[in-house]
Amino acid sequence: MELLKSHRTIRKYKADDIAENILQDILECGIRASNTGNMQLYSIIVTRNTDKKAELAPFHFNQPMVKEAPLLLTICCDFNRFKLWCSANNANVDFSGLLWLFNGTIDSSILAQNICVAAESYGLGICYLGTTLYNAPEISKVLHLPVGVIPITTLTIGYPEIITELTDRLPLDSTVHFEEYQNYSSDRIKEMYSFKENLDSSKKFIEENGKENLAQVYTDVRYKSTDSQFFSRKLMKMFVDQGFVFE
Amino acid sequence: MELLKSHRTIRKYKADDIAENILQDILECGIRASNTGNMQLYSIIVTRNTDKKAELAPFHFNQPMVKEAPLLLTICCDFNRFKLWCSANNANVDFSGLLWLFNGTIDSSILAQNICVAAESYGLGICYLGTTLYNAPEISKVLHLPVGVIPITTLTIGYPEIITELTDRLPLDSTVHFEEYQNYSSDRIKEMYSFKENLDSSKKFIEENGKENLAQVYTDVRYKSTDSQFFSRKLMKMFVDQGFVFE
Repeated sequence: MELLKSHRTIRKYKADDIAENILQDILECGIRASNTGNMQLYSIIVTRNTDKKAELAPFHFNQPMVKEAPLLLTICCDFNRFKLWCSANNANVDFSGLLWLFNGTIDSSILAQNICVAAESYGLGICYLGTTLYNAPEISKVLHLPVGVIPITTLTIGYPEIITELTDRLPLDSTVHFEEYQNYSSDRIKEMYSFKENLDSSKKFIEENGKENLAQVYTDVRYKSTDSQFFSRKLMKMFVDQGFVFE
Repeated sequence: MELLKSHRTIRKYKADDIAENILQDILECGIRASNTGNMQLYSIIVTRNTDKKAELAPFHFNQPMVKEAPLLLTICCDFNRFKLWCSANNANVDFSGLLWLFNGTIDSSILAQNICVAAESYGLGICYLGTTLYNAPEISKVLHLPVGVIPITTLTIGYPEIITELTDRLPLDSTVHFEEYQNYSSDRIKEMYSFKENLDSSKKFIEENGKENLAQVYTDVRYKSTDSQFFSRKLMKMFVDQGFVFE
């Protein structure tokens, strides 16, 4: 419990390698997670080679931890392995369709989180790289992923060099609804977000970016509509090309 | 570590309620998980009411644990709350596009898994209901979810009545690749799946369903192409209706 509650994202790592038995152990914890029909529709790509990290770095927008972390794990949906097994058994499996992409994404994410919890219990620090989906086709090429294997997220893992402060969260009751969803009045929204808006870090973001408020930092700087549309189209194209989306 | 490695899905629960402080604590562990840009694009719907459980049950194919478990948590992507905050701040957020659906699904799944680990550390047992995505539109109605809130997965939670055996997994090295994906030869596939194929439970499934082998139980009985296509189209329609998919 305390481990889960004290989680913070770690972006600066010591150079120390992660022992082989620790790596095996955290991966083992990953695959013990629940998964759809026990089909294990995932694969984990381990990156420790310096050249491979350098190849991946631009597709993670050159965030320094990609090259600095001793260990990168790219967590993928994998429909390829199960399909090969079915084909070898005269069984005709059909994973086309959006449902499977989502099932595979959920299973991969659950696995990733088990790996994080296990890694943190060893004193390691982790960071999720959301850039994985932004550049899934390019990352697939670097990692030689066949059709039917889609990179979902990447974890950078290493011993923490700098332990950051716990980040803020909305009050718990803002995200929890009892029996039915209670939509939010504008007063409630204002109240829920006021702590976040008044953080020094938020005020700094607003000033640095010349915006009126924190929400505009999100919409005009961090998560722009043009980027969102661009990366969504790229992702959609990958899914269509691989036969997951059909009309 | 031992907790993660000893995870098993629990489908039979004692009638005992879960104390309020334990519920709050496991939910708090959920929202401490990593999430995209700390936007907390999720909501958790708590179901404890008997009538609500009965309303939800058919959309989870009447699996008995839906009515029997003292607690159901439906974990949703929630773009509605953040959008309301942006609108109140003269900020124009654009979560349309597939990228956000996947980001939200990953964040919701990571949160769900933290809840599971926390629940298990309290001696509770959990089961993920994959049926949530099958019937997302119907479940949304029961839970009064507004546009922009998509149910991703459901957890049934309670004190275990029957603790099942640990389920099998492929050998760890079947799912892990070093530096690059190594595609599988047919001999390797045969070797990897032989343990699973030879389990007594597998042999029973094959016999009960009159199939030649285990793979055919998966493809012809459990995960049929017609179902997969039907539920994928339903999901796609929901996404199109809510503006997440565009061409």
